[in-house]
Amino acid sequence: MARSIVEILKEALGGEKVLTAKQVLRERRHDTWALSILDDMQGRPAPAPCCVVQPSETADVVAVVNACRENRTPLVPFGLGSGVCGGVRVDSDTVLLDMGNMTRVRLLDKVNLLATFEAGLRGADAETIAARQGLTLGHYPQSIDISTVGGWVATRSAGQFSTAYGNIEDVVVGLEVVLPSGEILVTRQTPRASTGPDLKNIFIGSEGTLGVMTAVTFSLRWKPEKRAVSAYYAPDMDRGFELQQFIIQSGWYPPVMRQYDFMEVKRNFPEQTRDSDALIIMVHEGPNSRVDVEKKACAMLAADMGCDPAPVETVHRWLEERNHVTGFEPLLEKGIIVDTIEVAAPWDRIGLIYKSVIRSLGEVEGIRAASSHSSHCYRSGLNLYFTFAAKPDDRAKMAPIYNECWQRTMEETLAAGGGISHHHGIGRVRREWLSRELGEPGVRLLADLKHTLDPYHIMNPGVLLPHG
Amino acid sequence: MARSIVEILKEALGGEKVLTAKQVLRERRHDTWALSILDDMQGRPAPAPCCVVQPSETADVVAVVNACRENRTPLVPFGLGSGVCGGVRVDSDTVLLDMGNMTRVRLLDKVNLLATFEAGLRGADAETIAARQGLTLGHYPQSIDISTVGGWVATRSAGQFSTAYGNIEDVVVGLEVVLPSGEILVTRQTPRASTGPDLKNIFIGSEGTLGVMTAVTFSLRWKPEKRAVSAYYAPDMDRGFELQQFIIQSGWYPPVMRQYDFMEVKRNFPEQTRDSDALIIMVHEGPNSRVDVEKKACAMLAADMGCDPAPVETVHRWLEERNHVTGFEPLLEKGIIVDTIEVAAPWDRIGLIYKSVIRSLGEVEGIRAASSHSSHCYRSGLNLYFTFAAKPDDRAKMAPIYNECWQRTMEETLAAGGGISHHHGIGRVRREWLSRELGEPGVRLLADLKHTLDPYHIMNPGVLLPHG
Repeated sequence: MARSIVEILKEALGGEKVLTAKQVLRERRHDTWALSILDDMQGRPAPAPCCVVQPSETADVVAVVNACRENRTPLVPFGLGSGVCGGVRVDSDTVLLDMGNMTRVRLLDKVNLLATFEAGLRGADAETIAARQGLTLGHYPQSIDISTVGGWVATRSAGQFSTAYGNIEDVVVGLEVVLPSGEILVTRQTPRASTGPDLKNIFIGSEGTLGVMTAVTFSLRWKPEKRAVSAYYAPDMDRGFELQQFIIQSGWYPPVMRQYDFMEVKRNFPEQTRDSDALIIMVHEGPNSRVDVEKKACAMLAADMGCDPAPVETVHRWLEERNHVTGFEPLLEKGIIVDTIEVAAPWDRIGLIYKSVIRSLGEVEGIRAASSHSSHCYRSGLNLYFTFAAKPDDRAKMAPIYNECWQRTMEETLAAGGGISHHHGIGRVRREWLSRELGEPGVRLLADLKHTLDPYHIMNPGVLLPHG
Repeated sequence: MARSIVEILKEALGGEKVLTAKQVLRERRHDTWALSILDDMQGRPAPAPCCVVQPSETADVVAVVNACRENRTPLVPFGLGSGVCGGVRVDSDTVLLDMGNMTRVRLLDKVNLLATFEAGLRGADAETIAARQGLTLGHYPQSIDISTVGGWVATRSAGQFSTAYGNIEDVVVGLEVVLPSGEILVTRQTPRASTGPDLKNIFIGSEGTLGVMTAVTFSLRWKPEKRAVSAYYAPDMDRGFELQQFIIQSGWYPPVMRQYDFMEVKRNFPEQTRDSDALIIMVHEGPNSRVDVEKKACAMLAADMGCDPAPVETVHRWLEERNHVTGFEPLLEKGIIVDTIEVAAPWDRIGLIYKSVIRSLGEVEGIRAASSHSSHCYRSGLNLYFTFAAKPDDRAKMAPIYNECWQRTMEETLAAGGGISHHHGIGRVRREWLSRELGEPGVRLLADLKHTLDPYHIMNPGVLLPHG
């Protein structure tokens, strides 16, 4: 009888790297997608993988990829499982590749401000390692404590300070990727090149479908000389959007600009509510003199716009609590289905998307809350981050109502000219809308790319591509 | 007998779009690669294409691509032919696709600061159209008067103000591309997305090998409130590099920082030479108050570094003459072979590359000049732009000596850890070094991508890929 993939992997890597203990398998069946957690609770648990492999170096990853390719076995890379879109959800024949033991620092270069971390390193640990040298990655997704640097690349992650420092595609200068062929692709770390298409971009956002990220090189910054904060009330969301637009289009880049609607002001800053105002908080960072002039310029633009200063305690509070991630479980256990959905849109669409999504979510059976804030600002537009919570009479309706909330948010966003994801990714939850975002030629191009790199479709099947 | 491709194209597009006049064909045989011009002069002229097609809309391009694919006919896109790497050089069976009649403005959006131009629009015309509205593309390659926006994308062009405004990949938000299959790919114009790999990056730098760019959407800026200039002498190139490094790593981004070695100071600013000093010129742009603090901060860093202020006439002179492109012909006619080669490197490699390339070029037979300046600065490193001129005793040696200068520059750059092209691209002149830059897996990935998109290899064959 043919050997099983588990036996093959044990022989190739040694038994201690190939885990089959029930608890280990159970804990890595899926990411933090609300629907997977709900399925577990409601007696529809996702299957466990056939084994969990924990590589300790790139050669191990090559061995796993080769074994899975030769045996046509699905292979799902796993960071820390903080994704919220169903990017990880296995079948019983899947090999789960847990990158948690690949956490080495391969390079920390204070001259060229480069750092190379293995993909399994937790984001917060990478930042701490940089911080010890007076440096920073400048990339702080809310999940920084519970996600890996490889996961950031796989999902096209955004950082909270992105307005000045950019998103993952702006701070990553190079990648090491094990391709489905077993080849190791190492992109160069020159500051800039015109040597054909920039190949690293094929893998940023590939969600595990095109290969396995094994190391990531970041362009670092020295910690800024100064940090200052400011906050403003806006009489309504539209006025706040306009203020953000004026600030960024005037050439100012406060690393953080976030705008909360009144419902979120009440929830997050209950002591600082004013009338039914929205709230904008900002963090300014950089050389002393630039921070001073930026803060002053933003204050003048706010005054021009009729936005009054708000207590800066709001910003300090956000800075303290910004990496706090609330689990879905406590609410799900109470029969409340909840999730967040981030989208992005040009300036002239953003107000309409805000209004139409909030209105549409309000029509959902059992809806308890529908609110939004913006957190990432660009010259050409803004993101919105919606939160919904619904408690249907019947717990059997939790999953259908969850899907309805997604359906409404995606459809309203697309109808108003927005984009379906700003930074969480596609996973499984957004697959059916991808062709509306990329167009049929775009989806075909992506599928062709997938088929070329991964002809046996072993890499994270079921994710990203609508028909994958 | 089967119809010729010219007949087929005339039927599909109408005769007036398919040109076969000798002069038209002759003028579009190649770009501005020095070796092609030399070949013409020395009686080795490149062949002319079988026809020049001038599409007036995307549907025309689709028709041409379909006809060429169905007839396995090489198709070479052509902007204004200002490339200097041999990216355009045809065979007698080639269809040359001259984009010069696709120059429409499809969008000029003052709210979202977006503009969509057809690919054949001259860069300077695009900038003028934006400027009439008080806007700017912020992308000013030296070739702006003699290149198209589609050409900028195809070659991964860099702009002179890149330190603050970024390069083409940072200012382009969307593309329309006719794929070799005849499909039209239109990427979305949302400000940012996590919806799989960002597909536009596959085409930025593809040098005509993966499809035909038909329209480009830019993220614009309002014209800056203020422009200021400053200039400093540096006692040697290393000290100047260090000053640039300090400025950018301190968090300042003067849009322009250029550093000339003494030989180029003598050539470009003869009245402002001092001892054997290098010269650094800077342009500061943005809101008034930020320009003021940036200029002051740069002055303090220069003083700390022992770099004295230099006459700002140098900067004004550069600003006036910056788009002047000297043709190779007058020098070639005198028997002098000349070219420029741009490379890039991390900070700790840049001084070595400067010295070793200049030293090595100095050993070439008949060398008259070898000099360099930097023009694009990044947190992790810098580019260098070498110029060489050699006059061998025997004109038959011009081409071999040209190749030797390239060979030496590429080899010294690679040996010292630099990257082989900053912004001119690969074309034909750098093909043999591409695998040293991308690695064999990188070249294979690029070749696989090419084969997937263009299975009959009709798109600009002979360019970019080492074995294309």
